[in-house]
Amino acid sequence: MSVSPPILPSILHGGRLDLARAHFPQAPEPWIDLSTGVSPYPYPFPPLAPEVFTRLPDVAALAGLERIAAAAYRAGPGAQVVAGAGTQAFIQSLPRLHWLPRSRPATRVSVLGLTYEEHAAAWRAAGAEVARVETLEEIAAAEIGVVVNPNNPDGRLEPAACLAETARAMAAKGGLLIVDEAFADFLPAEASLAPHAGEDGLVLLRSFGKAYGLPGVRLGFALCGAALAEPLRATLGPWSVSGPALAIGAAALADAPWLAGRGVALAQEAVRLDGLLAAAGFEIISGTSLFRLVRHAAADRWFAHLARRGILTRRFGERPDRLRFGLPAAPAAWERLERALESAQNDL
Amino acid sequence: MSVSPPILPSILHGGRLDLARAHFPQAPEPWIDLSTGVSPYPYPFPPLAPEVFTRLPDVAALAGLERIAAAAYRAGPGAQVVAGAGTQAFIQSLPRLHWLPRSRPATRVSVLGLTYEEHAAAWRAAGAEVARVETLEEIAAAEIGVVVNPNNPDGRLEPAACLAETARAMAAKGGLLIVDEAFADFLPAEASLAPHAGEDGLVLLRSFGKAYGLPGVRLGFALCGAALAEPLRATLGPWSVSGPALAIGAAALADAPWLAGRGVALAQEAVRLDGLLAAAGFEIISGTSLFRLVRHAAADRWFAHLARRGILTRRFGERPDRLRFGLPAAPAAWERLERALESAQNDL
Repeated sequence: MSVSPPILPSILHGGRLDLARAHFPQAPEPWIDLSTGVSPYPYPFPPLAPEVFTRLPDVAALAGLERIAAAAYRAGPGAQVVAGAGTQAFIQSLPRLHWLPRSRPATRVSVLGLTYEEHAAAWRAAGAEVARVETLEEIAAAEIGVVVNPNNPDGRLEPAACLAETARAMAAKGGLLIVDEAFADFLPAEASLAPHAGEDGLVLLRSFGKAYGLPGVRLGFALCGAALAEPLRATLGPWSVSGPALAIGAAALADAPWLAGRGVALAQEAVRLDGLLAAAGFEIISGTSLFRLVRHAAADRWFAHLARRGILTRRFGERPDRLRFGLPAAPAAWERLERALESAQNDL
Repeated sequence: MSVSPPILPSILHGGRLDLARAHFPQAPEPWIDLSTGVSPYPYPFPPLAPEVFTRLPDVAALAGLERIAAAAYRAGPGAQVVAGAGTQAFIQSLPRLHWLPRSRPATRVSVLGLTYEEHAAAWRAAGAEVARVETLEEIAAAEIGVVVNPNNPDGRLEPAACLAETARAMAAKGGLLIVDEAFADFLPAEASLAPHAGEDGLVLLRSFGKAYGLPGVRLGFALCGAALAEPLRATLGPWSVSGPALAIGAAALADAPWLAGRGVALAQEAVRLDGLLAAAGFEIISGTSLFRLVRHAAADRWFAHLARRGILTRRFGERPDRLRFGLPAAPAAWERLERALESAQNDL
């Protein structure tokens, strides 16, 4: 059989149904998008007031949202919480903060392991030398360290105490540790570094859209001390968070019971997904409640087999034997995934 | 009588009803906010599909919006249109583009006249020396020039041909002219520099929220050549425009008849507002269809008089004899403004 051409833009992101449709025009609609780590259960936010659209985003509403986020994430007492238009806004801004030394032509940045690629890309674009390292000791030796925790795509989880120690070591020499907790919402609170946010040399990133299933809203947070929060706010500028994001974020982040309920359901569904994938011959590597990373010698053919059935998964240019599966939402999506996994014998 | 304490944050912006309420707690509700240059007539956008919130902003939808904007603004054939989360996103980004020389400690930036203060603030924050100048000749002599056209708050309008010539002169020596057309939507098309967008040394900024009455959405555009568009996109990063902004912007910018109709109505209402203000003793300086700038020796007392009646206007720390009035929307708001303007005799 012929394998469809690969879908490999410069940085691979999930969610590119447009590319999938172009490559697999015969696939049945609607596509089931399992290529992202976004929860399939959007937070049921209340209707938006017209003022959310018709007025400039309110300064007081922004401060209110940041207070709600500080409580929801259990930020440390010395932490400032800065809201932005998605974690990506902070990933773009951190390499361009005023305090970064401009006299030196390049900053040395170390990123832990194979991970979300935008961190390295943003630092490189700002002129930094970026290295991938494999241990926290190597992170501690860099000027700037980046750890995605839990990691995307493999779910690797560094203990918060070790990360706090790494941040302290980096702070002592004027360095900075960036911990991206985009997928931390469904872990026990103890897994988060949030209580340490506010300590020198540490900035914590939290994503709103993934756990709450609303990535189109564009909302994320940086938790850090005042010395970093001030230039971050200056770099984002006024009104960087939209009116809808302020309203939806404030409602969702104040609703702890909803998140807890989702967490239980998603954990059960991740187990169910592991079972289906293992039965189809995949080796389960790991993941989080929002995505599972698996290995298969014929991963590229599995990708194409599923895509022809209108199911988009995430693959990795650098690791062609791996696929990442997000969680199906509706029973019909589970059923289509089960059928597609069972029907592969002749196709692979 | 005692004058209430001034409302003067570091940069004065309109729309701070929170501060107004704190300073004038006895004012009747609802406040009438005439302190911004936002149209009181929001575009009646259709209901938003759930996917606008539940999916990452779509790459194809972004490209579609940019095509619609290029047509709506009549961008030149060599222009790229870059969408961002409001004009402010570009004001924040332009001083931080990769191509700016980092070897030199400061860039010399000239800003034409008293104008929207965030341009100068963003360049200063990035280490530039910013000067206010009064002529296009002085703009042409700078490395980076900023012209808000028509100007906020005084409506001053530089002919497009003169600005195009200025941009050419600056391009010839490697400079850049930034023309902020945030309030150009209701002017004849000939007033806009958009047909020149794409020429070297020129970037044009367009605001969505003001003319369409939807500033909470956060949407704006840069029109420029590829050499500038590419680093601008890289600085903004992926998904910088939210799902709601993509959907609302595409619907509104494709609806030329709606905008034209609004333009006629707003022009009539600006004349009506001038009449009321002149009758109350204000000297009309100028403005646009979305705001009027007036002078009065007792402008500070007028500000307080109106605020006590729940009407917020915009004042200027540097020009204490001036006030800017946005347009009231509902008949009730017009009536309250009229009564407040007529009742001032004893209060001033």
